[in-house]
Amino acid sequence: MAAYETGARYDAGRALAVVRPQTTQEVSAVLSYCVRHGLAVVPQSGNTGLVSGSTPDAAGGQVVLSLDRMTRHFALDADNRSLEADAGLLLSDVNRRLEASGLFFPIDLGADPRLGGMIATNTGGSRFLKYGDVRRNVLGLTVVLADAEGTILEFGQALRKNNTGVDWKQLFIGTSGAFGVVTRCVLNLERLPLQTATAYLVPAGPEAVMPLLRMMEERLGTTLSAFEGMSRNAIAAALDHVPSLRNPFQNGEIPDYVILAEVSRTWQARESEEPLGDMLESVLAEIFETEAAPLADAFIGPAHEMWALRHALSEGVKQSGRLIAFDVAFRRGDIMAFCERMKRDMPERFPQGRICDFGHIGDGGVHLNIVFPRDAEGLADGSLETALRDWVYAVTVEDFAGSFSAEHAIGRKNQHYYDLYTPQKIKDMACGLLTLTSPGGLGTVRFG
Amino acid sequence: MAAYETGARYDAGRALAVVRPQTTQEVSAVLSYCVRHGLAVVPQSGNTGLVSGSTPDAAGGQVVLSLDRMTRHFALDADNRSLEADAGLLLSDVNRRLEASGLFFPIDLGADPRLGGMIATNTGGSRFLKYGDVRRNVLGLTVVLADAEGTILEFGQALRKNNTGVDWKQLFIGTSGAFGVVTRCVLNLERLPLQTATAYLVPAGPEAVMPLLRMMEERLGTTLSAFEGMSRNAIAAALDHVPSLRNPFQNGEIPDYVILAEVSRTWQARESEEPLGDMLESVLAEIFETEAAPLADAFIGPAHEMWALRHALSEGVKQSGRLIAFDVAFRRGDIMAFCERMKRDMPERFPQGRICDFGHIGDGGVHLNIVFPRDAEGLADGSLETALRDWVYAVTVEDFAGSFSAEHAIGRKNQHYYDLYTPQKIKDMACGLLTLTSPGGLGTVRFG
Repeated sequence: MAAYETGARYDAGRALAVVRPQTTQEVSAVLSYCVRHGLAVVPQSGNTGLVSGSTPDAAGGQVVLSLDRMTRHFALDADNRSLEADAGLLLSDVNRRLEASGLFFPIDLGADPRLGGMIATNTGGSRFLKYGDVRRNVLGLTVVLADAEGTILEFGQALRKNNTGVDWKQLFIGTSGAFGVVTRCVLNLERLPLQTATAYLVPAGPEAVMPLLRMMEERLGTTLSAFEGMSRNAIAAALDHVPSLRNPFQNGEIPDYVILAEVSRTWQARESEEPLGDMLESVLAEIFETEAAPLADAFIGPAHEMWALRHALSEGVKQSGRLIAFDVAFRRGDIMAFCERMKRDMPERFPQGRICDFGHIGDGGVHLNIVFPRDAEGLADGSLETALRDWVYAVTVEDFAGSFSAEHAIGRKNQHYYDLYTPQKIKDMACGLLTLTSPGGLGTVRFG
Repeated sequence: MAAYETGARYDAGRALAVVRPQTTQEVSAVLSYCVRHGLAVVPQSGNTGLVSGSTPDAAGGQVVLSLDRMTRHFALDADNRSLEADAGLLLSDVNRRLEASGLFFPIDLGADPRLGGMIATNTGGSRFLKYGDVRRNVLGLTVVLADAEGTILEFGQALRKNNTGVDWKQLFIGTSGAFGVVTRCVLNLERLPLQTATAYLVPAGPEAVMPLLRMMEERLGTTLSAFEGMSRNAIAAALDHVPSLRNPFQNGEIPDYVILAEVSRTWQARESEEPLGDMLESVLAEIFETEAAPLADAFIGPAHEMWALRHALSEGVKQSGRLIAFDVAFRRGDIMAFCERMKRDMPERFPQGRICDFGHIGDGGVHLNIVFPRDAEGLADGSLETALRDWVYAVTVEDFAGSFSAEHAIGRKNQHYYDLYTPQKIKDMACGLLTLTSPGGLGTVRFG
C-alpha cells in the first residue's frame, strides 16, 4: 500500500485500506459503506499534489479511495471539441490519445496528474495566459457524494451554454474533493499548436517586466501563449543540478531575471504567411526601439531547449538544498514588487534562505522557493518552516491582497492558513454546504 | 415607477416601492430592513432581460431594488488587464470609458444591460466562441446577502489564480440574483480587435455546417471570433422590417442558411503581415477545393453591414408577427439536427408557426423564434404558448440533452421548466444553500 500512503514530495501516512473502484457505481457503493460505518475517506487521484491533499494521516484510520483504475471511458466529440472521460485517466494518456484528432486538453503541467485531481485542485500551469485553468475548461462533471446513499449527481454534461440554476459543478472544482468525488468529466478541448516560436527576454529591470508584458500583449494578442518568469537563482539551480541542460546565455552569464515568451498558432504554416519566428523577431525589434525600452536583451531559440530549462527549475531548486516552497498569486502588477520585497527582507529575517523564484507572470502566479542549507537551524523541528510560512503568507495576503494558494489548492499543508484567512461567515457557509452535500466528510481539508 | 415595473419585452407588474441605493453599504441597509420586515425584494439591473427576472409581480407587494445609481466606482488596472466597477454601470458606458486603453469587456450583446444583470444571468453573446461567457471573465465580486444583517461579502477580487476554498462567487453568477445582490465586480478585460474581416458563408446543406465550422477552426484557430448561423426566415424578417438594411445576396435571393464568420486580430496591421481579408479569402478558397466541400457559396463584405443584418434579426422577427422565443443550447453537433427536427414536426403540431431561428453555432446556442399570425388561436389565452413551450423544451431537454436556458437564465418565465427538469436532490441542495446565504429570499426565482 506504500504508493498510496506516500505523497509525491511530502508526507507518508498510514491507510486503513486502499479501495480502487472502477466505475461510478462502485465509488457510490464505497462511499455509502464508509459513511454508514463512520469511516473517513481520502480521495486520491494521481497523488502528485504538493499540499498533502491526497494522502492519509499517520493515525491509520482513513480509507484511501484511489481513482487509478477508473480509466475506461474515453469518448471524443470532435464536433463539440469536447471529451467525456473517466476521472482516473492520466493527463499524458489523455493528450496522447487525442493527438490524432489535432485536439488537446490545454493544461500544461510539469507533473502528470490524473483528471480527477486536476479538477479537485483546479490546476493552471504554464499556458494559463492563453487557455485558462481547469475551471474554464470543464463543461460537465459526474460526482459521488459522501452521504448514506452515495448519491450520484451529473452536472452540465457537454454544453457550453447552460444557465438553468446553480452551476453546481463549480463546487467540486478546486475544493480538494471535500464535497464529493469526481468520477467522470466532460472537458473542453483546444486545437494543438502547430507552429511555435520561443524567446528568452531579459527585462531592463524588475520594474520593466510589466511594461514588457503589456507591449507583448498589445502586439501579439492571444498569439502570446506563455510569459514565464525565471530568477537567476532558479536558473542557476537547474543548470547546476540537471546535467542534460545547456547554459544558453552569453559567456554562461545568467541575467538577474529572464522571461520565457512563447507565441503559437494552431494551424499549419501557410506560404503567404509571415513565419512566426520572423513575427516574434520584428515585435521584439520594435520593443527594443521604443523609448525607455523595457528590454535589455532577447534571443530566439529552439522551443524544446528553452522549455527544458523552464521545466527543470522545480527539480533543480529541490536538489540544491532543503526546499520550502510557496505557490502564491497576485495582481499581475504586484508580482515583481512582492519578489523585491522578499529579496529585501529575507536576509534579515531568514539569513540562510536563498530565494529561487519563478512564476507565471501572465496570470499572476509565483512559485516562491526558499532553499536552506540542509543543516539550517530550525529545519529538523519544523520551527523554521512554520515561521517562514507565517511571514510569507502574511505579506502575501495582508500586504498584497494576494492568494496563499494559487493552483495547489488546500490540503493538510494549507489548512492552518485557510483557518487563519477565511472569514467566519464563509467557514459557516462552507460547513453548511458540506452538510447539504457530503455530510460523511471527505478528504483532508476542513472547510468549516 | 413605471419604468421599473415594466420589463424590456414582456411583463408589467406593480412594485410596493422602488429603492435606488448608490453604495454597497446602502444596499446592505435596504436588504437588512426588508428582511427584518418580511418584505420581498426583486433586484433590478438594466431590466433588459427576456425571462421576467427583474420585474415585480402583479400583486404590488415587492420592493424593486434598482442598481441604476450604482455607477460611481470605475478603476482600471491596465497591468492586470482588469476593471473594478460598480454593478450599475451600463455595458456601453464601460466599453466607451475603456476605449482609450485599448481594452474592453468582451461580451458582445444586442441589448445594453448593466454589469450586475449580466453577472446574474451569465450572458454569452455573439463572440462567446473566442471570449467565453461572463463567468469566464469575472475575477471578483462584492455581494450583499438578504439576511437580517445585510451581510457584505467580497470574493476573489482581482486575482486570476486563487484556490483557497470554495469559489463562492460562482454561486452569484447566472442565478438571477436569488442568492445575493452583486454590487461591485472585478472583470477580466481583453484587447480590442484592431483588424477584422467578415464573410457570409452558405453551407452546402444543414449537415455541412459542422464540417465547415471544424475546417474554419482548424485553419484559423482563435483568429475565428464569430461563427453565427442565420436562417432564411430570420434574414427575410429583418430585411422586411428594418428599412436601413441592404439585401446583400445575389439577385436578392436569400439562401436557406447563412453563416456570419468573423476573423479578428487585436494588434495594428503590420506591413510584413498577410492582410486578414486575404487570409480569410485563401482559407475559404482552400475549403471550396476540399472533396465534398461543405461550402456552396461565400463572400467577404464590410463588417458593419454584415453585423447590422445579424443584429437586426431579433428586431425583424419581433416585428413580423406574434413572437414566442426560445433560447436553448446543445452540443454543437446537435444544433442543426434540432433545427431540422423543429422544421419537420412544427407544421403538424403548430401549423401556423413560422420558424425564424438564428444562433451561435460556435458555442451551441440557438435562438429559436416561432412567429405566429397575431390572431392565431390560443394566443390570447396563453394556451398556444404553453403548449409550444412544453413541446420545444421536451425535445430540447429529453431528446437532445440540451439546455432550456442557454444565456437568459431563469426568471419567472422559466420557473415551471426549472421545477420540471431539476432533480429533487438538486432543489433540496439549492434550498439549503439559500438558507445559508440569503434566508430572506430575493428575486423572482424559486430554486428550492
